[in-house]
Amino acid sequence: MDDAVTPNAAEDTPLVVAGRTFTSRLIIGTGKYGTYAQNAEALKASGAEMITVAVRRVNLSNPDEPRLVDFISPDDYTYLPNTAGCFTGEDAIRTLRLAREAGGWNLVKLEVLSDPKHLYPDMAETLRAAEMLIKDGFEVMVYCSDDPVYARKLEEIGCCAIMPLGAPIGSGLGIQNPVNIRLIVEQTKVPVIVDAGVGTASDAAVAMELGCDGVLMNTAIAEAKDPVRMARAMRHAVIAGREAYLAGRMPKKRYADPSSPLSGLI
Amino acid sequence: MDDAVTPNAAEDTPLVVAGRTFTSRLIIGTGKYGTYAQNAEALKASGAEMITVAVRRVNLSNPDEPRLVDFISPDDYTYLPNTAGCFTGEDAIRTLRLAREAGGWNLVKLEVLSDPKHLYPDMAETLRAAEMLIKDGFEVMVYCSDDPVYARKLEEIGCCAIMPLGAPIGSGLGIQNPVNIRLIVEQTKVPVIVDAGVGTASDAAVAMELGCDGVLMNTAIAEAKDPVRMARAMRHAVIAGREAYLAGRMPKKRYADPSSPLSGLI
Amino acid sequence: MDDAVTPNAAEDTPLVVAGRTFTSRLIIGTGKYGTYAQNAEALKASGAEMITVAVRRVNLSNPDEPRLVDFISPDDYTYLPNTAGCFTGEDAIRTLRLAREAGGWNLVKLEVLSDPKHLYPDMAETLRAAEMLIKDGFEVMVYCSDDPVYARKLEEIGCCAIMPLGAPIGSGLGIQNPVNIRLIVEQTKVPVIVDAGVGTASDAAVAMELGCDGVLMNTAIAEAKDPVRMARAMRHAVIAGREAYLAGRMPKKRYADPSSPLSGLI
Amino acid sequence: MDDAVTPNAAEDTPLVVAGRTFTSRLIIGTGKYGTYAQNAEALKASGAEMITVAVRRVNLSNPDEPRLVDFISPDDYTYLPNTAGCFTGEDAIRTLRLAREAGGWNLVKLEVLSDPKHLYPDMAETLRAAEMLIKDGFEVMVYCSDDPVYARKLEEIGCCAIMPLGAPIGSGLGIQNPVNIRLIVEQTKVPVIVDAGVGTASDAAVAMELGCDGVLMNTAIAEAKDPVRMARAMRHAVIAGREAYLAGRMPKKRYADPSSPLSGLI
Repeated sequence: MDDAVTPNAAEDTPLVVAGRTFTSRLIIGTGKYGTYAQNAEALKASGAEMITVAVRRVNLSNPDEPRLVDFISPDDYTYLPNTAGCFTGEDAIRTLRLAREAGGWNLVKLEVLSDPKHLYPDMAETLRAAEMLIKDGFEVMVYCSDDPVYARKLEEIGCCAIMPLGAPIGSGLGIQNPVNIRLIVEQTKVPVIVDAGVGTASDAAVAMELGCDGVLMNTAIAEAKDPVRMARAMRHAVIAGREAYLAGRMPKKRYADPSSPLSGLI
Repeated sequence: MDDAVTPNAAEDTPLVVAGRTFTSRLIIGTGKYGTYAQNAEALKASGAEMITVAVRRVNLSNPDEPRLVDFISPDDYTYLPNTAGCFTGEDAIRTLRLAREAGGWNLVKLEVLSDPKHLYPDMAETLRAAEMLIKDGFEVMVYCSDDPVYARKLEEIGCCAIMPLGAPIGSGLGIQNPVNIRLIVEQTKVPVIVDAGVGTASDAAVAMELGCDGVLMNTAIAEAKDPVRMARAMRHAVIAGREAYLAGRMPKKRYADPSSPLSGLI
Repeated sequence: MDDAVTPNAAEDTPLVVAGRTFTSRLIIGTGKYGTYAQNAEALKASGAEMITVAVRRVNLSNPDEPRLVDFISPDDYTYLPNTAGCFTGEDAIRTLRLAREAGGWNLVKLEVLSDPKHLYPDMAETLRAAEMLIKDGFEVMVYCSDDPVYARKLEEIGCCAIMPLGAPIGSGLGIQNPVNIRLIVEQTKVPVIVDAGVGTASDAAVAMELGCDGVLMNTAIAEAKDPVRMARAMRHAVIAGREAYLAGRMPKKRYADPSSPLSGLI
Repeated sequence: MDDAVTPNAAEDTPLVVAGRTFTSRLIIGTGKYGTYAQNAEALKASGAEMITVAVRRVNLSNPDEPRLVDFISPDDYTYLPNTAGCFTGEDAIRTLRLAREAGGWNLVKLEVLSDPKHLYPDMAETLRAAEMLIKDGFEVMVYCSDDPVYARKLEEIGCCAIMPLGAPIGSGLGIQNPVNIRLIVEQTKVPVIVDAGVGTASDAAVAMELGCDGVLMNTAIAEAKDPVRMARAMRHAVIAGREAYLAGRMPKKRYADPSSPLSGLI
């Protein structure tokens, strides 16, 4: 009966990255939480199935200190090792090889940074590093600027997900340049996942409404006053934005004299 | 166990309007849908418990034509008769008295319009009409401009919910003036519910992040390409925005030389 | 020769308010300056020909203290007494009668405030006060909210300029709701002058690009680090915005696949 | 006397690019005008002293057809040959060598494009081309993305002006990412000139308020309904934005209960 009324309200297709299938389109991080327990709690509330780990900063293996893996099991969640803190391709490949040896992780998030002031990626070095990693057998999800030209280069060499920044890491400013995110979405065949810049729920919804396949965030959840509650907010925000994108929003209307020069003004 | 980690992640309090309690903070409309069946389907997907009805336009009682009540039962949902199409207080009170006689509905949404071009309320007449209705025993939820001064007058005479517009009815432009909505939220003790202007999911999330108690929308759902899917999007968007508001977002950061004149610029 | 090339680059028509003609479309204030000398210097730099004076706060007549009129001559500039600090129509009319007796000023700016928190006008009382003043023979330029419905009422009773706020007085937030300012511009036959909210030059340009006939500002100049330089900036900004409005801007283009759901999104 | 009141209202320093001094901070183009005569007229109205020429498209030397140089004299204006339409470094250097032979022009604007859909620069190829040109003795002003990391690379190899795009060429969308423009301004010692994206006067003012040293535009003037009038608007807009930047704007204020979670929200 419902089908007759809403033929295309079928469930969403899953997010597929490098052959792996995810029901949730949200990826969260492991930095800046008070405790691993809080991080685990936020992860649960977020509904995310993938969690990114700065392998240089998080204790994965030393049994004498609290280990992330004791709170968030790699059996239950997809660990996505990242190269936070790496400034060259060589740094990045060394870091990720250690992670692969430690946990067998082959799907990775590459970030090659430049200036600590804004933590933007160095795109030339990012491209070089991605090539090295792919040659070495990694599946590379890649943090990048919102430049559609470099996004295409990264897709062409075989990156399995394009992850443009929405705003500087940790800034919470929201998507600064929706035009660029849209251009990347329109030209890209692998998943596009906004990485960095989301500050609150509506920012995540906007990213998804632009047609992105997912959102990765850390600070927005970890530095909210109540991280677990914000994690829950983000779960709903990503679904909301995705469903709105699939539903096809109403056109904006201007309510103004068509003969006036309003169009294009506002 | 969870409590220890997230002491303040308690469930949200419900929305209470004129003594009635609602779990959902979303109210949807009954205009512009293809069929009553589709309207009912969207209502179900939205999770809303309250539905507003333009009593001058919707067939409630003529048994020879399709009736809304046969698709959306007043036993299952709170009907909120509204005065769409009324331009004077006398029009409004006549319309709502008929509705009260027909369905016993005492909780109503007042709108007294001015110019068909923008469908903004006439605030002076709205205030006069609200006084008349309250005197006549109605519980009045009131559609109003985003002027905090008039919002206060409406609260002072006893309106049970203040419903400022976010943008012109049917425009889908999103919240035009968040400063005003915030000022209204900060000064108001009864529920504040954004009514009009929402175009997509992130707009609804923004309204809730500003601290509103709820959102009412019609066109954003009814004129989406897939109304039922958009209804589902809105359900999640309202929850997302509400939870983000309660969670307390991270501060925005500027990433710029503190000695530079950036602050206040962007 | 030039005419052949640019037939419609004729000079702008002047601003006419209540029969008085002004070459400049900028009006500045007299509050918050360090000294009357600085105020006079800023006025000169701004090119403004009209200056608004809070007659309750500025010393116009006591010869034992510095007087504004000794720095800014009423012979050289049009003084526009205003009712800053008035909360009722009676206050306003009393204040302006005193000003009329003192300086013969008949052209006035009415503001009737409500809450000190936001300094928004009380529109019901503003309308009542305007009626009283007009009956008493004043030419009333009226500070108002950006509600097009009240703007029309004020025009209908005979106000000689409609002065909607762009943002709260002294906030420097810029035009919050361009849709409303446009609606007012489109419906109004007397001059529309944005009053309050401008923070920097581009804000003034935006106001003029929306089709306003002028801009009034005080804090943006008086509280800039270098008020005289900012006054000069504002002179150019108002001309820039006016000329751009008259020139007719290029349409915005989206650079996106027309088959994609971008339109209306960004 | 004035000095005592406004000690720092001294005149602005001139724009210096590669040792050349310019009073105007506006650069205009030579595309899309109806006629060379109109282009010349707009140039005059704009006050610009530098004009950029797509040497592949504009007739500079064929005496049998209208020549730009007959309308805009290279003796009166600085010609800035550009490489519009070039997609490789080799294309660019060939084009600019021809221009140098033809007119002796050594100061050039490099643009190396990628996809015709958005006309964004290919930054890797742009950097390579800039190196080739500098080695060949050119003074290179360089059109680039708004990526601060590449902006720094271009400065480091010796480009004499950094020219980030504000939005796609010809889009008229205005500055999309003020955060990036600010980051570039803060880190750069040579002039930063926004190139592309300006649609109307306030956009140009915004660019200058962000601290840019100049603005280059073509379509905003050429495709305005009245190009000459828009040129005049832009002259004022650039001065307005520059003066406002130097004056130091007032801080934005929020007018909200400091105990409420407004800060960071709006």
